[in-house]
Amino acid sequence: MVAPPGLSGVIVADTTIGDVRGEEGFFHYRQYDATALARERSFEEVWHLLIRGTLPNDTELSAWTRLTAEAATIPDDLAYGLLEVMHASAGNEPLVTLRTALSAYGALVGDGPLWDSDEPTKERAAIRDAAVVPWLVATAHQLAQGAGPRAPRPELGHVGNYLWLVTGSEPAPEHIAALTRYLILTIDHGFNNSTFTARTVASTGADLTACLVAGIGALSGPLHGGAPSRALDALDEIGTADRARQWALDQLASGNRVMGFGHAVYRGPDPRSELLKETAIELGGASAELAVHVEAKVVSVLAEAKPDRVLRANVEYYAGVVMQECGIPREMFTPTFACSRVVGWTAHVLEQSRDRKIIRPLSHYSGPEVGRGSSPV
Amino acid sequence: MVAPPGLSGVIVADTTIGDVRGEEGFFHYRQYDATALARERSFEEVWHLLIRGTLPNDTELSAWTRLTAEAATIPDDLAYGLLEVMHASAGNEPLVTLRTALSAYGALVGDGPLWDSDEPTKERAAIRDAAVVPWLVATAHQLAQGAGPRAPRPELGHVGNYLWLVTGSEPAPEHIAALTRYLILTIDHGFNNSTFTARTVASTGADLTACLVAGIGALSGPLHGGAPSRALDALDEIGTADRARQWALDQLASGNRVMGFGHAVYRGPDPRSELLKETAIELGGASAELAVHVEAKVVSVLAEAKPDRVLRANVEYYAGVVMQECGIPREMFTPTFACSRVVGWTAHVLEQSRDRKIIRPLSHYSGPEVGRGSSPV
Repeated sequence: MVAPPGLSGVIVADTTIGDVRGEEGFFHYRQYDATALARERSFEEVWHLLIRGTLPNDTELSAWTRLTAEAATIPDDLAYGLLEVMHASAGNEPLVTLRTALSAYGALVGDGPLWDSDEPTKERAAIRDAAVVPWLVATAHQLAQGAGPRAPRPELGHVGNYLWLVTGSEPAPEHIAALTRYLILTIDHGFNNSTFTARTVASTGADLTACLVAGIGALSGPLHGGAPSRALDALDEIGTADRARQWALDQLASGNRVMGFGHAVYRGPDPRSELLKETAIELGGASAELAVHVEAKVVSVLAEAKPDRVLRANVEYYAGVVMQECGIPREMFTPTFACSRVVGWTAHVLEQSRDRKIIRPLSHYSGPEVGRGSSPV
Repeated sequence: MVAPPGLSGVIVADTTIGDVRGEEGFFHYRQYDATALARERSFEEVWHLLIRGTLPNDTELSAWTRLTAEAATIPDDLAYGLLEVMHASAGNEPLVTLRTALSAYGALVGDGPLWDSDEPTKERAAIRDAAVVPWLVATAHQLAQGAGPRAPRPELGHVGNYLWLVTGSEPAPEHIAALTRYLILTIDHGFNNSTFTARTVASTGADLTACLVAGIGALSGPLHGGAPSRALDALDEIGTADRARQWALDQLASGNRVMGFGHAVYRGPDPRSELLKETAIELGGASAELAVHVEAKVVSVLAEAKPDRVLRANVEYYAGVVMQECGIPREMFTPTFACSRVVGWTAHVLEQSRDRKIIRPLSHYSGPEVGRGSSPV
């Protein structure tokens, strides 16, 4: 069986974690509409849903919040060694530092291979690694700027704590609410490259951190996690709404892809983008207003140029606006994405680890013919 | 298109790096029989073949050997920070420490995303990362034992230097020759899990180190890189040749898989195993003699029990014997495998990076039905 390039359109596994129904402009986590979850639930509730399969009742939620809050702080004796590791990498993108730091943290506290672990041990590892990513990326960012790490404030909740760690200011409730929406909306989205990578590693029975570190590497690729800040850079370049039409025409004329528009799966509206647009407008601010105007102009230029294909704003477009309004600097957009997607990876790794079959495809040799025993001499 | 579980039998990409022809008991790198290369060439020559596509002439080989030897030593100013990182992880398996250490090293000297790099830059990164893995795994092992790192001796060649780093003794020429065979034979072998993982990450355009770190994570899984020492543990358990038959019968009766026998791709003899058996016999030693006797007994028991399927010794069986005879401790067997396979990964990552299509499959949702707008409230 020969698969199409990039495994495009190939169903490689069953999952109960969620699904993307691109034609309907709809995606869900477990049995719930993901946009409804993003409107109505806390990050911790949806995290529980992803890992345990159900939304928590009040008792479960208190216990879960205690677990995740405890795991958000690295014990002092480990933090010292970890800061050494991160200092050594401080000249890099936060996501590159995260790759090393999470690898080191998993090794310091790790539970060994998934296949030697029972379900409670695997779940503990999943909570532990995902809970600490906000501190790791925020600290990577601090160190890159020559500043020291901030102490976590887990009592602010997972999202509030992250905002505190990144901005160093008391997070405003409306910013926590807006960022909660973004983070819930980006926990999971089918077998995207990093999720598939994490599952591929999990199928060898490696430890959970190995799977997540592989996922982080994948997310650091420009084709995967790299676009939200570029959409905002484009908004800066456009500057004012009246220049949007000409800018879009110029982009098309020069053959550039228009950043922030179009998606491989959604042909119609991207449901994440719609909710984030609404969120950006609620937050107000000049960049939201500009973004709405520019979107309308760009969509109309794209529709004229490519009438057969409806290109709309994708998740990256309004995600950037929301993150900016919440005070997150651009170089932290993709690392912020990692804070939510790591929860999705852990859910997928746990699911994959219950299937003891290694992922091991074939390749087709397309070089010169080789006879048996062909000698190099 | 629905793929079989684990992508088994699915051709996911074209490659000119090599091929495994399981039915014929044959595999090759580029246009040469891999076992012929292992008999007749140095590791550096085959490394050049994998990366540049041709066996080097004398001039090319001198230049290549200079490049790889230079890259085998980490500059002092970086080594200090790296040793800090490795100390923090020293309680772990060497492969887990390698994952963190290579991630850190790549970040310290890295060239950024593959997609922003020209071919010479990518090749330099490929040489740099693969050349340093022997020092990293040997040092991880030293630190785990409470000992200090050894200074590389690149003038011994890639394989001799590795033996020196692991054993701390002047490597014997016959050990260098034997280990060269093992390392050449294990550079590449189709789209095994770690190679496919590295290519999947490369398809996002991430930096080369991110791809290799993902591959290391995959190799650390018990289903992938974990078996060579278990085959030797079995030999220890058997102890003497006359107990081999009963041992094999007991294994079958208890439903255990017999470690070191059988392979997913080779139905007949594993060509790697055949050459390593010859090599083990040449090295002499008690464990080689025992291994040959046990193999014969186990194969005959397996043939009686499963007449429809010929199970033979696989690469892991004699690989363990050869490594043991060369003085490599068992906990370093899989890390030694990493020293050769990393060369294969780099060749695959370079090849994948020329194809600007992200690997992004689909999944099938198999949970409860979900209606659009289904609310969690």
